Amino acid sequence: MKPLDALGNLLNEPVMVKLKNGMIIKGKLKAFDIHINLVLENASYEDNGVEKKFNQIFLRGDMVVFIS
Amino acid sequence: MKPLDALGNLLNEPVMVKLKNGMIIKGKLKAFDIHINLVLENASYEDNGVEKKFNQIFLRGDMVVFIS
Amino acid sequence: MKPLDALGNLLNEPVMVKLKNGMIIKGKLKAFDIHINLVLENASYEDNGVEKKFNQIFLRGDMVVFIS
Amino acid sequence: MKPLDALGNLLNEPVMVKLKNGMIIKGKLKAFDIHINLVLENASYEDNGVEKKFNQIFLRGDMVVFIS
Amino acid sequence: MKPLDALGNLLNEPVMVKLKNGMIIKGKLKAFDIHINLVLENASYEDNGVEKKFNQIFLRGDMVVFIS
Amino acid sequence: MKPLDALGNLLNEPVMVKLKNGMIIKGKLKAFDIHINLVLENASYEDNGVEKKFNQIFLRGDMVVFIS
Amino acid sequence: MKPLDALGNLLNEPVMVKLKNGMIIKGKLKAFDIHINLVLENASYEDNGVEKKFNQIFLRGDMVVFIS
Repeated sequence: MKPLDALGNLLNEPVMVKLKNGMIIKGKLKAFDIHINLVLENASYEDNGVEKKFNQIFLRGDMVVFIS
Repeated sequence: MKPLDALGNLLNEPVMVKLKNGMIIKGKLKAFDIHINLVLENASYEDNGVEKKFNQIFLRGDMVVFIS
Repeated sequence: MKPLDALGNLLNEPVMVKLKNGMIIKGKLKAFDIHINLVLENASYEDNGVEKKFNQIFLRGDMVVFIS
Repeated sequence: MKPLDALGNLLNEPVMVKLKNGMIIKGKLKAFDIHINLVLENASYEDNGVEKKFNQIFLRGDMVVFIS
Repeated sequence: MKPLDALGNLLNEPVMVKLKNGMIIKGKLKAFDIHINLVLENASYEDNGVEKKFNQIFLRGDMVVFIS
Repeated sequence: MKPLDALGNLLNEPVMVKLKNGMIIKGKLKAFDIHINLVLENASYEDNGVEKKFNQIFLRGDMVVFIS
Repeated sequence: MKPLDALGNLLNEPVMVKLKNGMIIKGKLKAFDIHINLVLENASYEDNGVEKKFNQIFLRGDMVVFIS
């Protein structure tokens, strides 16, 4: 198994993504590529205790720390 | 679906782009490429509480955190 | 021997991964690639003295400092 | 349209370039390439409230945040 | 001679590696590649005055400042 | 014209180079390449109010902010 | 002349290398490559006022600010 295969298994599953700026974004994984660019659906993150919601969010891969 | 397909679906739609320096820029997505270089039309961002407006703005892709 | 061969010898073994943001993540190494993207199983890390656990975690390679 | 086409439309036009170190440089866009390296003519920026002027300035592309 | 040849001469020799986060790791050089990914055996580093030891450690090349 | 053509026009001319660490180096431009690696002759920069001089200095391109 | 030719002229000559972490390392240039990876012989740098000496030191190219 390669690491990207593990991401493939997460498609359409809920994931948590930690970014290099400390943000944690949750949502359903809809797409990824070899740069680890991601698209999450029904995504949300907390900003100063307020939950922000997005129908869809594109995350640039070089910002990703981990995905679980 | 690949992440860039999701961006393709946003062409001519209003988007919000968060940059690595904390700036948030809003505008209509007119163009993107594989580096996530972006062009927004009728764009604006807040600078110390003052809204700055641009007919068109080119954003370098490596500054992008997320697009929604 | 090349460095990636050493990682190959660690597959299915418990490893400790130090990231550039200071995090230390422990788990069983399930996958790696030439970018040093990693997948750990039964992974955990400490966050303010609280252990956080994950069935599986994908770590982006450019965050890795060392693996042992 | 691709993002670099938008830059092509700005050739010989006055532009404002924001760099990652916070500098804002204004001038007439004379050249660009795929790395977003730029050449501005009759360029200026403010340094501690003093305007500095240049007949021509070469900006390294990886410093660019946005161009408008 | 090219720089990587100098690393080749250090194989199976004790080396000291300084990383970008300030860490200094000592051990026997067992492997390296063109990215300067390294594997050290019988490695150790000091952490707050306590020596930490590893049978084997993989260091990601982009963290390396110098090797001697 | 491409940006590197503008650098070609500066060969053997006095230039000022600003680096990402804030240093400003002046000298005669003797060479450059696509990475914006530079060689300056009769170069100098100020360090705490003291001018340091070099017959020749090689600047790594990824440190360059601008050249004028 | 290209910038790397200037480095070629410095082979077996004493050089001073400034790194991005502020370190200044002196020694005889024995090898370099296109990444500006360097090998210095009879090298030394000051650490808190104490001179540290190395028979040979490998410097990773992406740490280099300038060489003179």
